[in-house]
Order: sequence, then structure tokens, then C-alpha cells
Amino acid sequence: MATREIITGAHVFTMEGEGVGYLADTAVVIEDDRIAAVGPEAELLARHPDHARIDGRGCALIPGLIDAHMHTPLAVLRGVAQDVAHWMQRALAPYTRHLDRAASLAGTRLNILEALRSGTTTFGDYTRPYPGWAETFVDAGVRAVLTPTINALPPGGMAGWRVGDLYPLDDGIGRRAIERAVAFCRDWDGAADGRISAMLGPQAADMVTREQLIEIRRIAEREDWLIHMHVAQGDREMEQLQQRYGVRTPAFLDDIGLLDERLLAVHLTEATEAEAEQMALTGTRMVLCSGSIGIIDGIVPPAHAFRRAGGPVALGSDQASGNNCSNLFNEMKLTALFNKIRHRDPTVMPAWEVLRMATLEGARALGLDDRVGRIHPGLQADLVLVDLAEPNLTPVLGDPVRNIVPNLVYAATGREVRQVWVAGRTVVAEGRVLTLDGESVVADAQAQALAVSRSVAADPDHRQMVLLEPMDSGRL
Amino acid sequence: MATREIITGAHVFTMEGEGVGYLADTAVVIEDDRIAAVGPEAELLARHPDHARIDGRGCALIPGLIDAHMHTPLAVLRGVAQDVAHWMQRALAPYTRHLDRAASLAGTRLNILEALRSGTTTFGDYTRPYPGWAETFVDAGVRAVLTPTINALPPGGMAGWRVGDLYPLDDGIGRRAIERAVAFCRDWDGAADGRISAMLGPQAADMVTREQLIEIRRIAEREDWLIHMHVAQGDREMEQLQQRYGVRTPAFLDDIGLLDERLLAVHLTEATEAEAEQMALTGTRMVLCSGSIGIIDGIVPPAHAFRRAGGPVALGSDQASGNNCSNLFNEMKLTALFNKIRHRDPTVMPAWEVLRMATLEGARALGLDDRVGRIHPGLQADLVLVDLAEPNLTPVLGDPVRNIVPNLVYAATGREVRQVWVAGRTVVAEGRVLTLDGESVVADAQAQALAVSRSVAADPDHRQMVLLEPMDSGRL
Repeated sequence: MATREIITGAHVFTMEGEGVGYLADTAVVIEDDRIAAVGPEAELLARHPDHARIDGRGCALIPGLIDAHMHTPLAVLRGVAQDVAHWMQRALAPYTRHLDRAASLAGTRLNILEALRSGTTTFGDYTRPYPGWAETFVDAGVRAVLTPTINALPPGGMAGWRVGDLYPLDDGIGRRAIERAVAFCRDWDGAADGRISAMLGPQAADMVTREQLIEIRRIAEREDWLIHMHVAQGDREMEQLQQRYGVRTPAFLDDIGLLDERLLAVHLTEATEAEAEQMALTGTRMVLCSGSIGIIDGIVPPAHAFRRAGGPVALGSDQASGNNCSNLFNEMKLTALFNKIRHRDPTVMPAWEVLRMATLEGARALGLDDRVGRIHPGLQADLVLVDLAEPNLTPVLGDPVRNIVPNLVYAATGREVRQVWVAGRTVVAEGRVLTLDGESVVADAQAQALAVSRSVAADPDHRQMVLLEPMDSGRL
Repeated sequence: MATREIITGAHVFTMEGEGVGYLADTAVVIEDDRIAAVGPEAELLARHPDHARIDGRGCALIPGLIDAHMHTPLAVLRGVAQDVAHWMQRALAPYTRHLDRAASLAGTRLNILEALRSGTTTFGDYTRPYPGWAETFVDAGVRAVLTPTINALPPGGMAGWRVGDLYPLDDGIGRRAIERAVAFCRDWDGAADGRISAMLGPQAADMVTREQLIEIRRIAEREDWLIHMHVAQGDREMEQLQQRYGVRTPAFLDDIGLLDERLLAVHLTEATEAEAEQMALTGTRMVLCSGSIGIIDGIVPPAHAFRRAGGPVALGSDQASGNNCSNLFNEMKLTALFNKIRHRDPTVMPAWEVLRMATLEGARALGLDDRVGRIHPGLQADLVLVDLAEPNLTPVLGDPVRNIVPNLVYAATGREVRQVWVAGRTVVAEGRVLTLDGESVVADAQAQALAVSRSVAADPDHRQMVLLEPMDSGRL
């Protein structure tokens, strides 16, 4: 079933050069898992008369979108934890302690269905591994960067701890988590013809010991893996670090040698602009989760400062129990808008910049830019065809101002995606995901979520949940 | 064709009381243009055995969404003016000066198609009237509050003026605009069985004379109309007021007696929290256009302060050449997120508050709460049925925490809308708008937009457009 296709007629945004690399009258040739050619339409059609022709007229063709930080199992808990302070402890933890393997799997499938439908081709998933986790991405035909959580927290997660308490860290638990993570990475890094890669994932500087962080750094260097870690992700983490070490997270990480090009630092919620700039200058990569941090914390992280200092910033949807969706079109829009607001400047983070963050720059942050992120001969054929004839993307103008990229960023919902390829294989056609049975994925997620909710309702701990008050007063 | 329908099985959010007025096992009966009954499903089914039954299982039923401030013709210019400073003068004006009647009509139709598809049932449109403007809303079967623009600006609009220059105001032009607006309001207020109402619309305090504002206020009182006006809408307006009168806009309006319950004040972009509170205390109503002002100015207006002081705040999508979309789901989400960010507090503007702003509170701001905004017997049957089985709205949970309203606000795109009624008539079914021919609306908008763009390209004035630089450098 070798792919031999030629996409014609589309507005092609290659992401080559410093902008969006727009090309008209250009065809893109897919052969097997790769982009074989990008060039003048008439010439490529003549050269490949037997390739299946994909009519892209009235569409934009962009590189597959890269979601660099997700917690896919939590999609099964969409909508249970918004509009509250101390989100993790007071809203989410009572649910996550009842998240079993079946619910996690249902969540991952639901998240892939939602995100793939909206053009996400690379999934940077971060979770406590469960049997079948990696296989789910392989079977769905998507690209994934998988990071099994490493922490030294006792069983039961964060439920039961009061805000402000110093957590206990268990050395044995942390060590076993590192061993399991190393075994996972050895098994999966490079699997499925390179569609799957893996990273080491200490959950945060407050959730493993200092020695474990140093050990993880040593292993990452030896095995040439990246470290994917939440950094300065909230007042909770900063408080823990201050209590434990007397310093803020960036200074702590710098002190133990973790700030360099091997670190993929997620969030930087509580980091100052100066800290973000200093981190960027060390070569550290950043993931910005605009929607999630906006809802959870009401904060816009200092990604603009990080980028000005030269660091690559990827986008991430984080998790649906806080975000509440997993859709890179949503993240692009919120990222552009939130940063304009943070800087009170409409010229900050224009549309073309956030489209690059969702494609080429995301690939750079994940260390995948030799494979994806641009429409370039030799790279993997991860592509998204967006129908511009939808009412909310009409009109399409090219002169004197081309309006396609602003409309993709500010007007698209993700539902305008018509076709998606990953490694040359069509995984979404006519807006339908081909590699998952949508109805059964939705039905299973619903059933699993109800089961988790029943366990939460039966658990006396749920009475501390802050959303019980708005339930009682008719606000939910 | 009298409507006799009963909607069963849906999760009903009536907006009664102080919250969202959730009801399960509840049916809603529609007779002619009104909601005839809301009550226990078994009882209402028994009482109305011959009514057509609408199966709402797996759906949420909410009041029709109210977009209180729009400029629908500008939908035809979607995407031509983002990521720039001095948006109106440096990006939009070169286009709007070439917007003729055919392009305006195409824009209005496109905007109705897009917004109605996403559940907007009341359209608060504000524009320079063109022949057929009001009829377009009547024909589309939607509810509209129409405000013809009144200004005293010389022909050609704002193109050609340099940032910082004081505009000339032409007394005769302003007086004739008032006369035309009064005639329009007399013709249309209450038309189409009350589906159309009208307001007087001085464009802004810097665009008519002081005497004209006072005259408009006198007419509004006499005729019992509201005044719909941009207030403190940008640094441009504040600069003009300072130059002309030496005061800021709210103080100016207070001084001439315009701040009271007859004023629907749009934007308040540049107003302080103290000014917003003072305005709310006078009875003034506010429209918040989160998406538009976020893109155009990078600013979150002081709507939270306005509401805390007791003033009603409606939502508005403004215009697609800046926003770039016209979708109340988008506005609800951005409003909740932007205000959390402005106040760095995730508890600010929870989901239920913005759902009220898009329904009941919007109706109050427009003076329509005796007709729409709630699901209540005797009110107009403006209703939206949203399919919750879409992947991005899955799961649906009710206990111990109901997640439907947070997911409608934070996860929905608007594309999950299945059916829409306006005044008892189904205008959207199975996600398709029934009252407009979608394909021809899109094709006409595309053709008209290309014609406008050709005129812009042929106009030497277009060379000052700030987006020509990103065009040249490959960023668009």
C-alpha cells in the first residue's frame, strides 16, 4: 500500500525561511512516508502522471500540527475542574485518584480522536504509563513523543494533602519510577518506523528529590534523550521549592545543571521574564500551554520573553480537565491573543509566529525538526488540508493583503480540517478520523467517565471539592 | 404553519434564578412563536400528544445566544487587519472606503450564516444602512436590533487622516445622518412581528458634535429608544476628546447627560475600573467585545468592574475584519479567559457567568428581557440545541459535579449546535442553516471581497497599509 499521491491547487504554507513560506501554483508529492517533492504544479503533474491526485483547491496545506505537552488520559475527565483556585488539589485530585487503566485508555483514545480531527499529528503525551498506552498511538497512526511520569510521591497522588504542606518524597518510589521510565524509553524510542519517540519525565522539581533529578540528567545524557518536565508551573511548586531548598525553581535547576538544550521545560507559569530569558539563553526549550494555564491560573507565561531571547517555544494543550479541549487551532488563537494582552500590544505574537510555534518551532523544541514541522522534500509527510470555503474562513484574499494565515489563527475552529496525513498515510478524510471508531470511542469515554464519577461520589474525600458549592447553588 | 413542538430529553438550562437554572427530565413546549410550557417531561408529553416531538437526548438546550454588537458588512473583509497598531486607520480604512452596497450585503449574509450556525439568534447590528440591510435579517428569520450609524465625518470615512490629527466634523452631515436614523427607526422598530427593533447610534463621542449628542439623547427619550454608542473605544477616541474638550470620554458623556439607562455603551476599552463602575452606577448598559478588542488593542476592558457595580454586560463579536469571527461560543470563552488573566484569578468570570452574559444578561442590556434570554413560558421561543456527544464535549457528567456548562464555554466551538429556533421557527436543523443558501452566500462573499480587494489594490492610498511589509517579507 505504498502511498503515491500529488496534492494540487492548495495554498501551500511550507514554513520555509523566516515566515510562513507561502507558495501558490505548487504541488506537493507524497511517496511512502515522505514528502518527495514540492514544486511547480504543471511540472510535478507531468513528472508523476500515475500518482493519485488530491484536489486541494480552496484549501490551505500546512504542516501537521504539533502538540508538545498533553496528558491524554485526563480527556475522560473533561470539564470537572474549572473556575477554581488550587485547581489540582481542590478540584482534580479527587477524580484522578480513581482513574484506572480502562478510564485512562478511554481518555487517551478520546483525546486522539478530538485532536487528530483538528489537525494535530504529533502528540507529546506525558502520563503515568498504563498497559496499552504507547500501542494506542501506534494503532491510531499518529506520531507521538511519550514521556512516562517520574515522581517520588507516595501512592494516592496529591489527594489528601493540604495546600501549603510540604509533600513527603519517597526515595524508593522515585528510584523505581526512574527504572521503569528508562525501560519504557528503551522499548519505545524509535518504534513504529520512528513514529514514536520517548523522553524522561521528572514530573516537577518539587516531586522528585534533588539526587533523582541529577541521576535523570546523567541518564538522559548517556542515552541521548530529552528531559520533559513541568517547570515553575504554579505557586504550589514555588512554595515547595522555597520550603525545601530556599530558592525558586529556575535557580534550583541551574544550580544542579539541568538548564541546557536537553531540557524541555513546560509552563514557566510563575517564572519572571528575566528567568525566562536566562533559561532560553542556556538552550532550554519551552512548551507554552496557553489555554490550560489561562483557565487554571489566569496567567500568561513569559513565552514572548523566552522567544525574544532566542529559545524555541512549542504549544501544548495540556489536559482537558483544565483546558478543556485539545485543539491546536484553539492554542494558536489563545497564544496570540493572551500575549497581546500580557504586553498590551496588538503587534505581539502575530498570526505567522504562532503558526510557526505550532509547526516548525514545535518540531525544534521536541528535537524532531529533521523529520517534521515543514513542507520540505525528504521530511515526513505529516500534512493538514484545511477547507477555506467554510463560512468562517471566507473570503480568501491574496492581494494586496493575503488573509489566510490570520484567518487560520483567529477564525478557524479546527473543524475546517478536511484531510490529515501522518507519515504519508491518510488518517483523516472528509473530516472523519479513519483510524479510530469515533462513535465507540465517545461511548466508551462516556461509560468510563461515569464509572469514575461514581467512585468519586462514593469517596468521602470528595466532600472537600470546591465545585460542590456552585453545584448546590445552581451555577453548574 | 403554526409550530406545535415538544423538546424532550435534553439537559435544559433555563437561566432562571441566580445561576443557570438547570433542569433534568424536563420538556419544553413551543407553540407558534412562544415557549408555551417548561415542565416535567411525562406530564407535558401527556398533555400535548399531538405536538411534534424533538428528541433532545444527549443535548443541552439553552436560550438563543445574543450578539449585542456587530458590524455585519465587514465580514466580507475577514482577515485583512490583524496584528497591527492603529488598526482602523492603518489597516481597515483602505478597505472600508471601497465597500459598496453589494459587498456590504454579501458581508451581512455571510455573517448571519456563520453566527446563526453557531447559535446566535439575536443580532445587534450597527452599520451605515444600505438598501436591503434590515430586510436581510427579516428574510434570514433571525431577531435583530438594528442601529444605523450616525456620524458627522466628511465622505471617505477615516482613510487619509493621520494618527493624531483632529478630525473635521461637518454639522450638516451629522444632522442629515440623525434625520435618516430617526426615519429608519420609525420604519423598523417593532417590525416583523417584533423580531426587529432599532436604536439610535452616534458612532462615538469623537465622531459627532456635542450638540448632536444632546439632540440624539432628546429624541431617544421622546421616542423611547436606546442609544447604542462606542464609548472609550481606543486611544484614538480619547485623544480626540482630550484635544476637543479637555476631558476623557466618560466625564464628557456624564457632563452632557448621556450616562443613564438609555445608553448601551460599547467597548470601554480605555476606561479605568473607576470609570466603568461610575458608569454602571448610572444605569448605563455595556457591551463587551472580547475577541475584537483583544486582537485590535491587546486590551481586556473593565467589564468585571462594571458587573460588580451592578451593570448588565452583553457580549458582542464586533466585526470579522478584526475579530476575526462572529461566534458567541468564541466570545464566551475569550471573555472568561481574558478576565481571569486581567485579574490573575481563575475564579473570575466562571463559565456560568459568561453563559448568562450571552443570554439573559445580554437580553437585559438590549432591553429585550421581556422577550428573550431565558427558557420561560410566555417568552419568545429562541432556543439552541447543542449536541454533547461530539468528542470535544464528551463526557457528560452530572454527579458529584456537572460539567456541561464549563464544557459549553471552554470546549465548544459552536459547530456542535444541532438545531436553532427563532420565534418558534426552526432556522438551523442538523447543523445546516435553512434560511440562507450557504453555498451561494459563501460564493457571493468571495466574489465581492475580490472586487473590493481589486479596488484597494488600484487605490494609491493602499500603499500606506501596514500589512504590506509582512506581505513583502513572507509573513502572510
